[in-house]
Amino acid sequence: MSVDPVDLTARLVRCRSVTPAEGGALALLEELLSEHGFACTRVDRNGTPNLFARWGDKGARTFGFNGHTDVVPVGDRDAWTHDPFGAVIEEGWLYGRGATDMKSGVAAFAAAACDVVADRPDGAIVLAITGDEEGDATDGTVALLDWMEEQGERMDVCLVGEPTCPDEMGDMMKIGRRGSLTAFFAFHGVQGHSAYPHRANNPVHACATLMDRLAGHRLDEGTEHFDPSTVQVVTIDTGNAATNVIPAACHATVNVRFNDAHDSGTILDWMRMEADRVADETGIRVEIVSKVSGESFLTPPGPLSDLVGAAVAAETNRVPDLSTSGGTSDARFVKDHCPVVEFGLVGHRMHAVDERVRVEQIEALKRIYARILRDWFD
Amino acid sequence: MSVDPVDLTARLVRCRSVTPAEGGALALLEELLSEHGFACTRVDRNGTPNLFARWGDKGARTFGFNGHTDVVPVGDRDAWTHDPFGAVIEEGWLYGRGATDMKSGVAAFAAAACDVVADRPDGAIVLAITGDEEGDATDGTVALLDWMEEQGERMDVCLVGEPTCPDEMGDMMKIGRRGSLTAFFAFHGVQGHSAYPHRANNPVHACATLMDRLAGHRLDEGTEHFDPSTVQVVTIDTGNAATNVIPAACHATVNVRFNDAHDSGTILDWMRMEADRVADETGIRVEIVSKVSGESFLTPPGPLSDLVGAAVAAETNRVPDLSTSGGTSDARFVKDHCPVVEFGLVGHRMHAVDERVRVEQIEALKRIYARILRDWFD
Ligand SMILES: [Zn+2]
Ligand SMILES: [Zn+2]
Repeated sequence: MSVDPVDLTARLVRCRSVTPAEGGALALLEELLSEHGFACTRVDRNGTPNLFARWGDKGARTFGFNGHTDVVPVGDRDAWTHDPFGAVIEEGWLYGRGATDMKSGVAAFAAAACDVVADRPDGAIVLAITGDEEGDATDGTVALLDWMEEQGERMDVCLVGEPTCPDEMGDMMKIGRRGSLTAFFAFHGVQGHSAYPHRANNPVHACATLMDRLAGHRLDEGTEHFDPSTVQVVTIDTGNAATNVIPAACHATVNVRFNDAHDSGTILDWMRMEADRVADETGIRVEIVSKVSGESFLTPPGPLSDLVGAAVAAETNRVPDLSTSGGTSDARFVKDHCPVVEFGLVGHRMHAVDERVRVEQIEALKRIYARILRDWFD
Repeated sequence: MSVDPVDLTARLVRCRSVTPAEGGALALLEELLSEHGFACTRVDRNGTPNLFARWGDKGARTFGFNGHTDVVPVGDRDAWTHDPFGAVIEEGWLYGRGATDMKSGVAAFAAAACDVVADRPDGAIVLAITGDEEGDATDGTVALLDWMEEQGERMDVCLVGEPTCPDEMGDMMKIGRRGSLTAFFAFHGVQGHSAYPHRANNPVHACATLMDRLAGHRLDEGTEHFDPSTVQVVTIDTGNAATNVIPAACHATVNVRFNDAHDSGTILDWMRMEADRVADETGIRVEIVSKVSGESFLTPPGPLSDLVGAAVAAETNRVPDLSTSGGTSDARFVKDHCPVVEFGLVGHRMHAVDERVRVEQIEALKRIYARILRDWFD
């Protein structure tokens, strides 16, 4: 019996799976997939719930799907016009936290996989579903991939079902992502009275100079498949309430989204060089601590993007753009294991109040995923 | 009978007159001055205690002293080696909050005035002593001067008894002060995701640019009697904990100490012009709210500074430098009423733990003030 992806999305939205809560979402999927012949394993790590499901033999040619059932918090509950865990359908919209990001995507690929395996295709399907994509993501898809490695599990290709379409169903797929690096700067000077600046050394001045230089620098003009790298100073903080006091220290945080002209090491080298220059000019000590969320990666246009693009075009009459825009996703982990692309529906109000999805897009997404699988197995 | 200024300092230090508390300090002075023939009036305003004392006729040639008995808080009590309200004398030092700033100064001019009026000089002496110099100062010396105006009270010249000597007793007097203006900047941009900076407009970047330009600008090279004006960015704050979010707003505070090449209006015009330039370049809206603590002022070298300088030289064998350095003082209010200079002792650890004063400096300061009065009346 064919699985209704809209009903499955609604049942998943009703699970209160705010990161890191499982909320019944993975249990629901485990039950459904087991009924349809998938071998399911919970791959929890450090309290993070994850679900691995396989249909077909380990050694067989394997198509993988990746997605997440955890959602971000509701935010301002009073601003929602519908219960964020109610999955109310009104005028063709299904409302709820995770409606687009990405319980509908998980429902669509689970439903498609159940339908396709009923025909017993020649190959295997793997679903790697995590409960920690919106959080630190340290024990989510990474834990699933580690466990697969240990078990000799593998995928030949993988499709991540995150929302990818900016405006219309089918208008964009992602074949890579820019990398993301966050640098935390601390500036240490000499405290003093603002009437006697020659006896102090103001760390805020060094901070303003360095942040102005970093934000004003153009790292590149973009590359063949990537937009230009960008630098954003997301916060500067000092916490000095005394207007006649030059503070001893201040802090700044910079987030860099970089394309394949760089890697996190070259970005850090550049920031360190600029920081050293300001330190030399001012005598202010500048400390940098960095966190790399992911390196940039690209699955060059080829068989996998052709397969997905053709299925999208057949179902939507749109040829999706091959993009590398946007933030990070778990594709940054999958890319170390096999070619990976991302395709999903339009992300209406992701992470915002009144997150919602067009019901017909869920149905279209299931048809696209099913077509991808059938074309892959043919 | 001659008044002992060290004993009077000790008794004042024992009064817990942390702004805005009177702590018994003005009451003590009122009693002493009344005994020596001064007509005393408490000129309290909005809960701030102030004391006005006159010896001699309103119409007579009048020498004024100005000072304050309020003190800043103790701070880290455990770091003090002596009771901050104990006025313990050890190895020639008198310890306590207000020991230098400026209960010793008030004690020295009150003691000197009591001695001098015993000789019934031809003229008058006014003491205007406030309990709010360390706070907002809105109802302190200003209230005393307002009240004097109403009452037809006046001074021909005034000496403020704040500590003025950087190293040795007698090495500096002040004939003016730079002005002080604080500007509070708010930068309003467009919030967004740091992976999509083209859909946002980062106010932190505009802030860093403007603060770098303001801090890097040299307003002047100094003037005949003044050091160069200085610009200090004392804080930048954003309060954005999300490293993937471009914030909607950020704030910065700038303190300018300006000499007589400027006034608060020209400084504000300059900041507004630079802010408009950044706003034009970035599309970020920049709001400025300003607070003027005082305009710069100068009592040009002349009879008053000659009188004080000669007395200092006679008692200390040092010719004091005529300076306009340092922060603001209540002289910025007095200067609108009559020529004003400032002279006091060495300000050891003002506002810090273990504030203390050399006992012999209190005695020397009383001798200097008495000599100034006698020379003035001659
Ligand atoms: Zn997502
Ligand atoms: Zn003072």
